[in-house]
Amino acid sequence: MNKSNENILAICGFKKSGKTTLIEALLLELVPKGLRLGVIKHQNKPVQTDQPGTDTFRFFQAGASVLGFDGVSTFVKQKQSLPFSLEQALRRLGPDFDFILIEGFKESDAPKIWLLRNGETAPPDQITNILATLTVSDDRLKRVLKLIRDQFLMEI
Amino acid sequence: MNKSNENILAICGFKKSGKTTLIEALLLELVPKGLRLGVIKHQNKPVQTDQPGTDTFRFFQAGASVLGFDGVSTFVKQKQSLPFSLEQALRRLGPDFDFILIEGFKESDAPKIWLLRNGETAPPDQITNILATLTVSDDRLKRVLKLIRDQFLMEI
Repeated sequence: MNKSNENILAICGFKKSGKTTLIEALLLELVPKGLRLGVIKHQNKPVQTDQPGTDTFRFFQAGASVLGFDGVSTFVKQKQSLPFSLEQALRRLGPDFDFILIEGFKESDAPKIWLLRNGETAPPDQITNILATLTVSDDRLKRVLKLIRDQFLMEI
Repeated sequence: MNKSNENILAICGFKKSGKTTLIEALLLELVPKGLRLGVIKHQNKPVQTDQPGTDTFRFFQAGASVLGFDGVSTFVKQKQSLPFSLEQALRRLGPDFDFILIEGFKESDAPKIWLLRNGETAPPDQITNILATLTVSDDRLKRVLKLIRDQFLMEI
């Protein structure tokens, strides 16, 4: 991973451990400070731009990668063969970010937060590079903001 | 524009001049030859991944750029301030393409095909870098394939 991708933190845990909620809370704290944030995630469902009849759908079905611009955002859809790595995701997202949050990718070697569900006591043994393990009763937002401040973005 | 972006061709014309149809036909010819094609376009409607309730929507609304992976494709959605240039679009799409087709962007200086509608006789004066002007009765696919072959991708 190149220099621009050093400020990455994966939020990991099993289903329903609170990953999405925590990431959204982090964004709502960090974006207003002027930081450019990126999020990398797996989609549960196929991307819904792929609706039959739209031009984007037709072009993508015909085998092209498609970049669309809708007036306020750009949207890029590209075919992706498996396996899909975090390195590929970071390259696709590009270099123009102050900090990148990753939802999942627990098998990667990215620095990570592990979120325990009720009744769980520890992360699985094979998970590497865990900076903090948080229970449901921890103030997760506060703990992770402090960790980001201390270990990544000293100035926030 | 850098080296990787020299193989670009814009398909331009007013509404209902046949841009989408021609681009789709070109893709269906060129993709099976093993060429990696990209398409850059304006969206008529806001990108439909932005559906309230999805994680992608929540993260994007919170101010982040989002990369999702749905098992067969990656999807990147980024905020984009106006004006949006072709150069920015090409940078976002990335370098890994043999040829990039552009729908519209008629004000750009990209090499372009101008598609006339019935009753039109010439492109507007201010349009630059027109390689060919095609009427509705021309065999547009054949003409543009020949042009791509002759001027860009000699080997196809």
